[in-house]
Amino acid sequence: MGKRFHCGTLGKEHIGQEVVLKGWVHKRRDLGGLIFIDLRDRSGIVQVVFNPSVSKESLEIADKARSEYVLEIKGEVVARDANTVNERMETGSIEVLAREIKILNKAKNPPFLIQDETDTTEEIRLKYRYLDLRRKSMQETFKLRHQTTQVIRSFLNDEGFLEMETPMLTKSTPEGARDYLVPSRVHPGDFYALPQSPQLFKQLLMISGFEKYYQIARCFRDEDLRADRQPEFTQIDIETSFMSREEIMELTERMMKQVMKEIKGIDIETPFPRIKYDDAMARYGTDKPDTRFGMELVDVSSVVRESGFNVFSGAVQSGGTVSAINVKGGAMEFSRKDLDQLTEFVKIYGAKGLAWLKVEDGEIKGPIQKFLSDEEISGLKEKLHTEDRDLLLFVADQTKIVQESLGALRLKLGKELNLIDSSKFNFLWVTDWPLLEYDEELNRYVAAHHPFTMPVEEDLHKLADHPEDVRAEAYDLVLNGYELGGGSLRIHKKDIQDQMFKTLGFSQEEAMNQFGFLMEALEYGAPPHGGIALGFDRFVMLLAGRSNLRDTILFPKTASASCLLTEAPSRVSENQLKELKLKLVEQLINEEKAEV
Amino acid sequence: MGKRFHCGTLGKEHIGQEVVLKGWVHKRRDLGGLIFIDLRDRSGIVQVVFNPSVSKESLEIADKARSEYVLEIKGEVVARDANTVNERMETGSIEVLAREIKILNKAKNPPFLIQDETDTTEEIRLKYRYLDLRRKSMQETFKLRHQTTQVIRSFLNDEGFLEMETPMLTKSTPEGARDYLVPSRVHPGDFYALPQSPQLFKQLLMISGFEKYYQIARCFRDEDLRADRQPEFTQIDIETSFMSREEIMELTERMMKQVMKEIKGIDIETPFPRIKYDDAMARYGTDKPDTRFGMELVDVSSVVRESGFNVFSGAVQSGGTVSAINVKGGAMEFSRKDLDQLTEFVKIYGAKGLAWLKVEDGEIKGPIQKFLSDEEISGLKEKLHTEDRDLLLFVADQTKIVQESLGALRLKLGKELNLIDSSKFNFLWVTDWPLLEYDEELNRYVAAHHPFTMPVEEDLHKLADHPEDVRAEAYDLVLNGYELGGGSLRIHKKDIQDQMFKTLGFSQEEAMNQFGFLMEALEYGAPPHGGIALGFDRFVMLLAGRSNLRDTILFPKTASASCLLTEAPSRVSENQLKELKLKLVEQLINEEKAEV
Repeated sequence: MGKRFHCGTLGKEHIGQEVVLKGWVHKRRDLGGLIFIDLRDRSGIVQVVFNPSVSKESLEIADKARSEYVLEIKGEVVARDANTVNERMETGSIEVLAREIKILNKAKNPPFLIQDETDTTEEIRLKYRYLDLRRKSMQETFKLRHQTTQVIRSFLNDEGFLEMETPMLTKSTPEGARDYLVPSRVHPGDFYALPQSPQLFKQLLMISGFEKYYQIARCFRDEDLRADRQPEFTQIDIETSFMSREEIMELTERMMKQVMKEIKGIDIETPFPRIKYDDAMARYGTDKPDTRFGMELVDVSSVVRESGFNVFSGAVQSGGTVSAINVKGGAMEFSRKDLDQLTEFVKIYGAKGLAWLKVEDGEIKGPIQKFLSDEEISGLKEKLHTEDRDLLLFVADQTKIVQESLGALRLKLGKELNLIDSSKFNFLWVTDWPLLEYDEELNRYVAAHHPFTMPVEEDLHKLADHPEDVRAEAYDLVLNGYELGGGSLRIHKKDIQDQMFKTLGFSQEEAMNQFGFLMEALEYGAPPHGGIALGFDRFVMLLAGRSNLRDTILFPKTASASCLLTEAPSRVSENQLKELKLKLVEQLINEEKAEV
Repeated sequence: MGKRFHCGTLGKEHIGQEVVLKGWVHKRRDLGGLIFIDLRDRSGIVQVVFNPSVSKESLEIADKARSEYVLEIKGEVVARDANTVNERMETGSIEVLAREIKILNKAKNPPFLIQDETDTTEEIRLKYRYLDLRRKSMQETFKLRHQTTQVIRSFLNDEGFLEMETPMLTKSTPEGARDYLVPSRVHPGDFYALPQSPQLFKQLLMISGFEKYYQIARCFRDEDLRADRQPEFTQIDIETSFMSREEIMELTERMMKQVMKEIKGIDIETPFPRIKYDDAMARYGTDKPDTRFGMELVDVSSVVRESGFNVFSGAVQSGGTVSAINVKGGAMEFSRKDLDQLTEFVKIYGAKGLAWLKVEDGEIKGPIQKFLSDEEISGLKEKLHTEDRDLLLFVADQTKIVQESLGALRLKLGKELNLIDSSKFNFLWVTDWPLLEYDEELNRYVAAHHPFTMPVEEDLHKLADHPEDVRAEAYDLVLNGYELGGGSLRIHKKDIQDQMFKTLGFSQEEAMNQFGFLMEALEYGAPPHGGIALGFDRFVMLLAGRSNLRDTILFPKTASASCLLTEAPSRVSENQLKELKLKLVEQLINEEKAEV
């Protein structure tokens, strides 16, 4: 027909021009013998007018068009009358006077309106994902995702990194999360595993001498899903040789700075603040603090160690902690009923209760006030920097419970009291992680990050006898209370890796069976190396200002790992299973039943 | 220690500078009380000299270094004496006088030398892939691969394409190659499939209105492997809405032009030549002609239809073909024994024999000459443009056998006679494909490309009754005799897709069960769309001038789909299978045995 233009790009500068448009009927209105169609393509929307005096035939065809029909339209861009200019529409100063129209495809009436505010359920949105994705906010999220990918690539390319593809059909290694398995047809009884991360392969690439690797890598974990988890996810995966921990952190900071600048137009300050793991737990009750607001946890154990209030002194004396948060101005805001609800909330995290005090007219008031001495009261006032109208909330318990419950309470109150400036992007490094955690269930140590993390050199001598005291050369990057990713220096010496597996309770045989190829590779000139992996879906979610991870993934799975659009996973044919020499247990059960 | 430099980047301009180098011992020589180490990093190699008069301590440490040890060295760049300048080494005009050295890691003696010419087996190379990848030619291949990826991305980004990630855990659809399956733990008995291509998802993205999509996508096919196949491979996957076939082909050509310019420094001509599928088969005996040399197949059926030579006339009269190739100057080159070998070769492709004639001193000679009339002889001479010393090779059979056997023979002779200019990059479009092929085994039509390919509009009416005559809106891109990829316009109308599935022998229920989500999506405003997918591994292989696909994949699998490095696939634990509610058939057999 002629030169194609995109709907959302038309403006006054096109007035008088002949344009061809291709897109979807966003809205159709009949008015005084004319038909108005808001035509939508990926660039935006423009109003097209069908006027019988211009083309009667076009008007007749336009009359058949319904919502979401696909049209090709030829027409002239004209100025709107002053009284019909639509300021809320980007192309609202012009419209297109249609001369020709062609219906490229019809559409059934969609199950929900293609607009940002949709009142349909997420289930329906996922079933008709192709319609859901037509909404402007979704289109913008995936443009942002695309752009972010390109900024990151461009940054890493300029830094001399090579983008490299590691395999998807790999070896199952039971250390870590649960693997997704892929049965082999050629080797019946054997399985590949989908990678939980390219960890071992990127280490092998360093041993191969490539020195700077990155990949925007798909990873898989067969875990029970939470709101912010997906069975498959994407990570920005980076590994370098010969760089120090500081150099890797600095590189990451520059990358984030560039993303924030190019995607959000924000200059963020570097270096990012750092906090040690122990301090993060003590001050925020979490290893991923949201530092966009205060209300930090304050350990008041020293003040109440000898208190007559047994709940406090008892907790401290049995090795636990008493900590508090100060809800500024909260004294008048929270009724007894509210406080009862907060008590129920901390119980979710194992706390036995929540004690509280209010500051009113300079006086400390509340049910536990009478158990506290004047000295204790003034000690608390000092530690908690109290002012009039403050609300003090206390948990006394084992340290872990105190931190987790108060940390969660802090976050909940921060959100509810609107203390969080959502325009802020607060990056934070969490450092000085423990190398190992004791797993009560497995009755052994497990790696806090993964078994390839380098211990801090000066702690190395403790690895055999006091593994709990060994720190890791690890660093997590936190953004606005979300773990954006983590990295570490890796073990590049065979003897340390041997010791690590020993500490984790692996026999020599088990270690070789699972990780023999890595152990062997470490003996052939492995350079010092380290890296970082950042959760890309989550990063996009934060950049797009969204709260649902599924809105940042084109075709996400539900909490039960299903795709509502394609209905995957699904049954496969007998023949497919036969080729894999597999039987379903239920099939066996049925066969048994049939025999009986 | 100081500022890091890369070995291969040092030159005369650095003379007098203090540098820190980190890399591997490529070679070590002791000479007159000095130690010379060729230090290698990803940039190249430089010679480092340890001189006792500079640092006795460093010399002593250097004395311990062996091949592939990882070193950190500090020293001064100095000019070499005129008589020790090494012209064959990029850094051969200088050397580094070492002042300090640190052994970062030791290395066992590698199982093969880290150099381009390696005489070890591919098996050993794959087992120690991390050492194999240290070789310069491998390093260069993966740098080229990285660069090619970036050129393609940059081109597509500039064209307004969005890079988008489609799922890896998808639905199994039996049409096409064999799927890799992934058992679901949450839904026992159900399976995901790994994608053979993002075909359906990219079509859904078009229906979502994104208009221009690309992905450098990992794809999976559980096929019996050939030398140029891998169970997982990478394709450049492109889809667009509203573009015509011509526009998609033109876009692809510009992309290829840019890659060739930026990666190889070659200006290739566009538009690429085109050939119809039928002509490709008739003239080259293959749907992926290597046009870097001539020796085309010539159909001489019309000349020999009535020949007294029954082999010829019989083939033509029973509906087959007689074709020939003219091996220029081959008359003296090929002995009887050679010709017997060529006969054996064409038999692989089902030909019953190979007839030949030689042109010697203007005379046609050869065992079949006596069966041919003068008229036939002169007809052949004319058709085959014979000159003195030509060798004419004939196959008479069913057309398909004639084409395949002579096509293969042409390629074999082209290589053996060095007719192929390996510096050429001959792109070629193959168009006018049949939409369907009759599968004798399945006793039904199958899609020549895939069931979503748009039939040529003017052939549409034949889809029900004469499906074999329907052409597809498909185009394959061929480079130097390799199928680089293929594309097509897709069916965007529900009724045509319905008819297509019907022609393929699907019941309504089967079609809905497998592809219901697509069928439904086509009803909600699907735009006209199409695209292309290019085999990236193969493209890199051709760009890198390599002949083994495995050399372009970092961690490839063997012909039995195994990874010799990690030993994937492998057994998994009882518990993993139990969670998936699966049993191995062999396990069942063993259990049965145990019972007996």
